[in-house]
Amino acid sequence: MNQQTDHAKSLDAELFQTRLLSFVNAISGFVHNISNPLTLITTRVQLLNLKMPQNSEFEKMANQSKIIVSMLNNLAYISQNIVSTEIKSLNINELLKNELTFFRTDTFFNHEVKKNYQFYPNLSKTKGFYFHVSTLFFCIMHLQLFLMRDTAEKTISVKTSEKDNNILIDISGTGGMLSDKEVNQICLKSINLETEDIKPRQLLINNLIKSHQIIPGNYILTIKSDHDQTYYQIAIPIIHE
Amino acid sequence: MNQQTDHAKSLDAELFQTRLLSFVNAISGFVHNISNPLTLITTRVQLLNLKMPQNSEFEKMANQSKIIVSMLNNLAYISQNIVSTEIKSLNINELLKNELTFFRTDTFFNHEVKKNYQFYPNLSKTKGFYFHVSTLFFCIMHLQLFLMRDTAEKTISVKTSEKDNNILIDISGTGGMLSDKEVNQICLKSINLETEDIKPRQLLINNLIKSHQIIPGNYILTIKSDHDQTYYQIAIPIIHE
Repeated sequence: MNQQTDHAKSLDAELFQTRLLSFVNAISGFVHNISNPLTLITTRVQLLNLKMPQNSEFEKMANQSKIIVSMLNNLAYISQNIVSTEIKSLNINELLKNELTFFRTDTFFNHEVKKNYQFYPNLSKTKGFYFHVSTLFFCIMHLQLFLMRDTAEKTISVKTSEKDNNILIDISGTGGMLSDKEVNQICLKSINLETEDIKPRQLLINNLIKSHQIIPGNYILTIKSDHDQTYYQIAIPIIHE
Repeated sequence: MNQQTDHAKSLDAELFQTRLLSFVNAISGFVHNISNPLTLITTRVQLLNLKMPQNSEFEKMANQSKIIVSMLNNLAYISQNIVSTEIKSLNINELLKNELTFFRTDTFFNHEVKKNYQFYPNLSKTKGFYFHVSTLFFCIMHLQLFLMRDTAEKTISVKTSEKDNNILIDISGTGGMLSDKEVNQICLKSINLETEDIKPRQLLINNLIKSHQIIPGNYILTIKSDHDQTYYQIAIPIIHE
């Protein structure tokens, strides 16, 4: 009887993961299907805009449709890469731009946080797991958004550069680092992802903050913090194809 | 050292699930954000259509924008409900319509399968887990799509009705049931979800087909099969609020 229950539980967990994964994998098909009616509208709007350039309505509509197309491209990019654990060519600027665009689905980040991006234009490509780089970045962003919830000024800066055969991602944000005591208090809470989830932060905190330096794969993450600001640097070795 | 590796593995698995879940949860925000530029276009198109009803272009554009809006609503509905394991009011017709619309992200289902739907208009609501009903349906659909890959005619029928205080979902499709031998052969394969995944089918096969009757929660699933056609019936007891 107990065995049956355990079996049902592990089946449920497996089906849960299967459905999450199938949803993520279905997004390409969704974007493909929605592109048909969208292209029809976009093409007509562009045609009308060419025919009647004096009518600013059509120009506005053409611009809005470009925004829609770029949001759908972002959704497709994230869904195709988010769980990719194959070693492949990584364009770190492209990865960060897409992850940051997708972070705009978070209302707080979208509306209340000032963003400051500097992407080094000639950044080398490297090889690695999309999942590792993006998850490290995802965890840092979640921690940082949490740290700045109550700060007066809310600014996140993301910058890429190259040094000593490494790609450097520098992230900084307003809001000071949590103390060990606060970390422990937070870890005791169990809060839902949809509202105030502590899970990714907790994982990060447990694994990163206590040591203030970890090496996932070959990446080096360093965290520094003063009263008002926290600084993170991810160093990714450049591996040529 | 081994412990460290195990710990890293379980951390990876947890982060994997966290990221899948956060992607699914982010979809509401995505739909919200994309609605702004879309509403701008839709409103202008509708206005132009009212001003110039003789111009069929605007009517076509208005219709296409309605399709886009309904696809986005479907995406939001699925993302909000897919992993819901709280007991709540279930509108089975609405659930099936949305799941079937979302199945159109599958190219084979969208383009090659004839669909036949009959939704009983006065179907009672019931209470239960969205996840259970939809996952049962999801597994049946995946099995059925697999069974009809090579059949000449490809038709799926979905019908709802009520009988003896139960909501009945009748699904049938062209393609006969797999034999036990075939089931075992399929279970030995390990194929990726994106191409020819056998995982949901395998779970279904392991748990449903061998007995030809299971009861997940209080639902009863019966499967009958002849040479050319397979029939599934899910009976869900009506629980009043």
